[in-house]
Amino acid sequence: MTTHPPHLAGAGSALPGEPVDNAALSAALGVSAEWIELFIGTRTRHFARDLVTGEVRRSLADLCAQAAEEAMANGGVEAADIEFLVLGTATPDHLMPTTASQVADLLGLDQLPTYQLQSGCAGAVQALDLARHLIGSGEFGCGLVIGGDVCTKHLDLRRDLSAAAPSDLVNGVLFGDGAGAAVLTAEPHGAAVALLRTLNRCTGLGRSPGQIIDWFGLADRDEDRQALTEDYKAIEESVPVMAAEILWELLDTLGWAADDVDFLLPPQLSGRMTRQIAEHLALPSAHEISCVALTGNNGNALPFLQIEQLLPKMGSGQKALAVAVESSKWIKAGFALEKR
Amino acid sequence: MTTHPPHLAGAGSALPGEPVDNAALSAALGVSAEWIELFIGTRTRHFARDLVTGEVRRSLADLCAQAAEEAMANGGVEAADIEFLVLGTATPDHLMPTTASQVADLLGLDQLPTYQLQSGCAGAVQALDLARHLIGSGEFGCGLVIGGDVCTKHLDLRRDLSAAAPSDLVNGVLFGDGAGAAVLTAEPHGAAVALLRTLNRCTGLGRSPGQIIDWFGLADRDEDRQALTEDYKAIEESVPVMAAEILWELLDTLGWAADDVDFLLPPQLSGRMTRQIAEHLALPSAHEISCVALTGNNGNALPFLQIEQLLPKMGSGQKALAVAVESSKWIKAGFALEKR
Repeated sequence: MTTHPPHLAGAGSALPGEPVDNAALSAALGVSAEWIELFIGTRTRHFARDLVTGEVRRSLADLCAQAAEEAMANGGVEAADIEFLVLGTATPDHLMPTTASQVADLLGLDQLPTYQLQSGCAGAVQALDLARHLIGSGEFGCGLVIGGDVCTKHLDLRRDLSAAAPSDLVNGVLFGDGAGAAVLTAEPHGAAVALLRTLNRCTGLGRSPGQIIDWFGLADRDEDRQALTEDYKAIEESVPVMAAEILWELLDTLGWAADDVDFLLPPQLSGRMTRQIAEHLALPSAHEISCVALTGNNGNALPFLQIEQLLPKMGSGQKALAVAVESSKWIKAGFALEKR
Repeated sequence: MTTHPPHLAGAGSALPGEPVDNAALSAALGVSAEWIELFIGTRTRHFARDLVTGEVRRSLADLCAQAAEEAMANGGVEAADIEFLVLGTATPDHLMPTTASQVADLLGLDQLPTYQLQSGCAGAVQALDLARHLIGSGEFGCGLVIGGDVCTKHLDLRRDLSAAAPSDLVNGVLFGDGAGAAVLTAEPHGAAVALLRTLNRCTGLGRSPGQIIDWFGLADRDEDRQALTEDYKAIEESVPVMAAEILWELLDTLGWAADDVDFLLPPQLSGRMTRQIAEHLALPSAHEISCVALTGNNGNALPFLQIEQLLPKMGSGQKALAVAVESSKWIKAGFALEKR
């Protein structure tokens, strides 16, 4: 069965507070600013929690609602037009109710399906993929797709990281908070960029997770266990290879040549890794759209931040490819866009 | 666009350990067995954690994989036939990687999309709904849909509930652990029961959540706040009314009369509330399928446990309606089945 692709009408984002530079992060966590610059390559990020006072200023729901408002305004769509809401996050405000339903409430949306995908770096793609299937069914004409993460609950400012091992340090300095959103419509509207293809495939059979993010409950919250574990060696080895495989697979299924691609949205791990991956992918005529060096890794938000930058740049007939890799269980993800 | 409905080929379930009766639960938590019998009306439940030793014996992933294996065996489908996996839960083992991807790993599944919905009592319906759209797109012929919850992280056996208020007591005695699964196919296969309709609608605009389940991170795990909050008064008032509305809406959109329905799968809150709701719904010729009095409220698993009981009972041309209500943010959910 052939279905018409849905269209991105507009996108928006919300980053809490002022950008936190490496000097400020260094002062809060006891990590060398030079080390951050060199090994992470991220210059600024935003946090929902005030690094000095510890106060939590924004919730994920709040950031997602702000991003969604902006996406609707940019897409020329009103809340009354929204027929479903999909939200991807690894770090929901609560387990129940979902942040998706709380965002619906903040936006004044009622009587609509709200889906929340538990997801990491592939989450925005999974959310777009779910929305593509909802619109493709013919049952819906317009919906919101949102992604965001906040590290508030895991960002322990009482810890001094000055003596931590690099593998532990990274968890303190890699992440940022934020949300992004896009409006999808069945018929071309607003930016009118067709979502031609989504790729979402778990490829981790038999492999250890590259990233584990845990949560604590009432019964186990005093256990002495890691809440964040990253296998950076595996990530550094695998992600560039997987990114290239995703890119070539997308080109192949679309019947596009490498120099057909006008814009490339590479995986956003950290400033340094994204630079390396983008060089490795090297599409001859593609303009790269990246943001992680200024936003930090805010997970499910990142592809929406890239889309927000992309949409106003696309001219009629231009093509874009996005690549994302979720190292948690080695998910290959990506999508293809074309301006109508 | 009209799409052919997908079909349930088979279902399965996994309940950890031996059933825990009210006397055993009473001994572990210091709650009167008579109170549980009278106010909850649930006689047994299963726990992934041993109530005496405190040992955690089963993970959610482990239970979900077992349920999925049984669903595949009952549906006459092999792991190699599975093209996607959808899992709904409120209580994932970790935040990352998803339990969905871990279940894929346990089942030997690779190179397929894995989606995890963060969801409560409406989660099984949302998972079936997502699967319906995936199969309806024509891109997939067969997939696994799984739901489950474990309360291990929140089940604090060190707490003595003997002096707790009833609103707090309830959280200790309402829940159970478990998982359920179903195989969905594009073409009729196995039990060949068509999934004609799914209803999934958030209706909570401006209403306080009926249920809040929270999680703790590294930075906030010593905070003295509630992790489980239930507004039982609101739930008791609203859920029966919402259940009736869902039932009549489903009948209306399907063009079915009340006495066309051969089987009713009512919401599974607790033994007592489910009895009340089922009496309230009173479909003249429908046989009720309930399990919560013996399994406890294991959230996302429950509709699959009901489906597992239902499938072998359905004769050709027979019809079933399922109703679920998620009180967290007042989600109306349900689905309609017909045996081919």
